[in-house]
Amino acid sequence: MDASSPATRLARQIEFIFEVDQLKEIFRQTVNPRSRRAENDAEHSWALCLCVITLAEHANFPNLNVLHVLKMVILHDLVEIDAGDTFAYDTAAMAGQHEREARAADRIFGLLPPDQTREFRALWDEFEEKLTPEAKFATAVDRFQPMLLNCRTEGAAWNRHGVTQDRVLARNQHIADGCAELWRFAANMVQEAVDAGHLKPGPAA
Amino acid sequence: MDASSPATRLARQIEFIFEVDQLKEIFRQTVNPRSRRAENDAEHSWALCLCVITLAEHANFPNLNVLHVLKMVILHDLVEIDAGDTFAYDTAAMAGQHEREARAADRIFGLLPPDQTREFRALWDEFEEKLTPEAKFATAVDRFQPMLLNCRTEGAAWNRHGVTQDRVLARNQHIADGCAELWRFAANMVQEAVDAGHLKPGPAA
Repeated sequence: MDASSPATRLARQIEFIFEVDQLKEIFRQTVNPRSRRAENDAEHSWALCLCVITLAEHANFPNLNVLHVLKMVILHDLVEIDAGDTFAYDTAAMAGQHEREARAADRIFGLLPPDQTREFRALWDEFEEKLTPEAKFATAVDRFQPMLLNCRTEGAAWNRHGVTQDRVLARNQHIADGCAELWRFAANMVQEAVDAGHLKPGPAA
Repeated sequence: MDASSPATRLARQIEFIFEVDQLKEIFRQTVNPRSRRAENDAEHSWALCLCVITLAEHANFPNLNVLHVLKMVILHDLVEIDAGDTFAYDTAAMAGQHEREARAADRIFGLLPPDQTREFRALWDEFEEKLTPEAKFATAVDRFQPMLLNCRTEGAAWNRHGVTQDRVLARNQHIADGCAELWRFAANMVQEAVDAGHLKPGPAA
């Protein structure tokens, strides 16, 4: 069969889809508010898609390419199939994270036909670099969504790891680069978590 | 605070996002291939997003609006938060399904600001009616993705419910309306499942 025929391309693409179905088995530190079980990366990625289509109007950028943002959030965590989830406040684990994830991107996106390998890898690189309006907005929702779940579970993941308000604010202030309105909301939400005793203020307080 | 201010809209949108986070707790009959646990609707919705961006080139329609398809698949199962998942081969449960889901759509999309209630409800109605190219392609991936998981789990959900090849083909032939190439692949895949003894051919065989 011709390697460039639609049927051959489709078969290869479906093997990619089946391989990355494993995203459902990559568990995060964040806890789902109803069941109180760990969220997985597939659920998280869907939740980001929902945030993007619901909140895009608030982006700092008037001509945001929403399709481009969605492609980034659909793909952004596939590398964790090989590299694992790195907790956002685990600075030791974060050393070498990008190199591990870049190797994972080589393997995983390499399962696709070459033109799509390049397209999806470029989307992941753009997300990682956080320079374009689309990457900045994708990053904003990627940072905000776990904060929302943490605040609605009495700070479950924060408290289990001893994370304090100062670190939450320092880690997530990049939300403002993509969506200033969302950062105002998030900072208030975090203050309410502190006021409710669900998050410790930190060493300087 | 002004009801139409960005901050007020955002707060309402985030309550919607939190409410529909429950999609993670709606479990389906389909089994995830690695863990062999039931797939949930959030995971399924993400998997459809991935199928859309990976397979859109094969759609029957050359000028498919991929963003529009993605919005439909992100939202298509939210109604199941109230109405529950209806197994595709449970004809008794399917009676009244649309009415239950339409009531759910009223409540759930009604949580949003009115303009967005209208936009998201129109997307869900379009998906349900299956008339536009975008709805036909969304339906094609919504039918294909559980078939793929069933074929990669030795027909787990089919066999648990006594579903046979003739019913699988009859139920899913609408894939061809959105993506003829994908239907060719799916029909072959189902035949392979029969040949491997993972799916019974049906009463006429």
